[in-house]
This record gives sequence, structure tokens and C-alpha cells, in this order.
Amino acid sequence: MVKVNWMNGIIEPKVNVEIESGKLSGEKVIEVTKRLKDLENIFSAENIRKEMTQDKIVYEVQAHLPVAEGTAAGLFFGTTIIHQGKVGNEYFMTKGHLHKKSDRAEYYWGIKGEGMLLLMDRDRNTWAEKMYKGSLHYIDADIAHRTVNIGDGKLIFGACWLSDAGHNYDEILMNGFSARLIEKDGKPNLVPA
Amino acid sequence: MVKVNWMNGIIEPKVNVEIESGKLSGEKVIEVTKRLKDLENIFSAENIRKEMTQDKIVYEVQAHLPVAEGTAAGLFFGTTIIHQGKVGNEYFMTKGHLHKKSDRAEYYWGIKGEGMLLLMDRDRNTWAEKMYKGSLHYIDADIAHRTVNIGDGKLIFGACWLSDAGHNYDEILMNGFSARLIEKDGKPNLVPA
Repeated sequence: MVKVNWMNGIIEPKVNVEIESGKLSGEKVIEVTKRLKDLENIFSAENIRKEMTQDKIVYEVQAHLPVAEGTAAGLFFGTTIIHQGKVGNEYFMTKGHLHKKSDRAEYYWGIKGEGMLLLMDRDRNTWAEKMYKGSLHYIDADIAHRTVNIGDGKLIFGACWLSDAGHNYDEILMNGFSARLIEKDGKPNLVPA
Repeated sequence: MVKVNWMNGIIEPKVNVEIESGKLSGEKVIEVTKRLKDLENIFSAENIRKEMTQDKIVYEVQAHLPVAEGTAAGLFFGTTIIHQGKVGNEYFMTKGHLHKKSDRAEYYWGIKGEGMLLLMDRDRNTWAEKMYKGSLHYIDADIAHRTVNIGDGKLIFGACWLSDAGHNYDEILMNGFSARLIEKDGKPNLVPA
């Protein structure tokens, strides 16, 4: 936000978010794309993942970062698109993470498509909340979170989180979640990992 | 979030937000309505406000409060509707506030209608960002903020803020913003207060 005095004081917003698609545009928006080649050892069937087209996009993230990562008391705002697909019978999903400062909360809200928010507490209890257009999810302190596309098209959701939360991917990369979402008879089943 | 193990681990979200209207429903959602009678000494023409229908709604707020107010590192999520109207030639608007912990940031995003986000720094520089469907606004540390409906219908916007931010209304109630949005020739003008 540029400070101006009242004489010329009506300004355009620096950034926009399309309400129907979550698409961000404007200043200080970053974009990250994760392809199958970036997701080693995330899916149960690593042998199948290795044989698939490595450039296939699994998910894309846009984030508005108005302050430096690590800034206390600030916020970030983002949109994630998970593409439709499976590795074997496991749905396309994000890597999943805890926050580096693990007490930092986060909001997710469903914008489009059909998904699941996989949540795991410190005792490795895992559960899943249904995601759909208009679902709202409060991710509490110390809860690992991963999102899964179980629908026929893209899953799109918004997010807001603290700018000093950070991301801890290592714990999930090493130990995984205690359950996975597997397609069986055309439906998602939460099964022990 | 209720913890369950993987055996019965797929659950419904506890709260929903309508993407097109911002309407919240579900657990831990509170609602506040502000009428003309609740907004003494907010508008320039207090004499006119006093003579208007006191029960007329100026704005309505819904908020999802999943943790106690004051909780560190948590978040709240809300929707505000400002009705169309004016007090004299000043548009309907919110009371405006700083955060009690004044370094806490907040996001606003326009959902429907046409508005202005009035922002004022500690040196009493005031400026306004245009709000419309899809506008995204990062309200930085130590910036007082007030929203104004300049359109022909309702202004609706979403918000996400820290659960330990709190609200400081007193400073604005005592000293106001240094500028006001006044209709002149059918258009909003930012004029010194």
C-alpha cells in the first residue's frame, strides 16, 4: 500500500482474486507448479509414479506475499489448483506439511471441484474433511494438512495463513500421514498407510 | 475439528461459506448487526443521523470464531455486508478500527457491490482503495481501516484476521479518520474531515 494524502487519495487495489476461480493477479503474487517429477516418495506406488509422464502437473499454487516470509503478525493469501489424476489408485494430492512454527493456524475454503482435506494430529490420528465449493476449514495448531482431489475435474481452494508460519515438509516426507485416500469401487476410502 | 481415527475418518466440514454471497453457516458463527442508533458520532452529519429511522441497518457482520478471542497464532474468518444509504451526503460505512494489538494484519476481499476501503496510518495520512468483486486488500500493521459502500446495492466483502488482533474502536471514535468519503455530483470524493 502506497501512502498518499487525501488530495489524490483514491487508488486501485494492488492485487485481485477472481471469486469463481481463485486466480490471483497483481503485485507480489508468486506461482509454484508441482509435477510428478517433483513428488518423489509422496504416493504409495512410487514405482508407478516413476513410470508416468514426469512433466505432468499435479498441482499449482499462487500466493500473495505482501510482506517478507517470517514477518510476525502478517498474513499471506493463496489459491491452490490440484489437477485430476491418480498414481495407481491413490488420488493426486499435495505434499502435505506442518507449519515450521507449528502452532500457526490456517484457513482453507473450497472454490471448485471435489476434494478431501487430510488432517493429522501429533498422535498420528488422521481424518479427512470433505472439500467442495463453499466448504470452510479451520486448520488448528499442530495439525498436519494435505489436500486431495477426488473429483472429475480440478480441485480449487483458497487459503489464508500467518506470514511467520513457514512450511515443514520434512516430517511428512519422512513419516507420511497414517492414512491415505485410495479409490475403491469408484469411491474414496481412507485406509491405513 | 473432532479427532477420529481412520476407520470412520471422513467427515463433513463444520462450517460453510457461500462463494457468491460470503454467507457463513455452521458451528461457531456469530452475527452482529449495526443500525443507525448504534453509530452515534460516526458520520459528519450527526444531526441528520439522529433524525433518521434509528432501526435502519447500516451493516451486518458474520464471523467464524473457531478459537477464543485472544488466542495466539489463530485466525478468524468473516463476511461484512454494508447496506446502501447515506447520512446527508456521506455514504454508509463501518465504525472503523485499529487492532488492539496494532501490528496485526488483516485481509479483505470484495465479493459483491462497489466500495472503498479507507486506510489511515499513524501520521493520519488517509487514502482509499477501490473495492469491488475480486479486489484483494492487505491491511498492514498499524493501519486504521473502515469500509464504505459507494454503490447502488449492498457491498459485501470477506475478511481474515488474527485471533489475537482484537479491535480498538476508541481511537477512531475519538479522533476519526482525517478524511471522509462524500458524494458530490453523484461521485465519491475523499475530502478532509
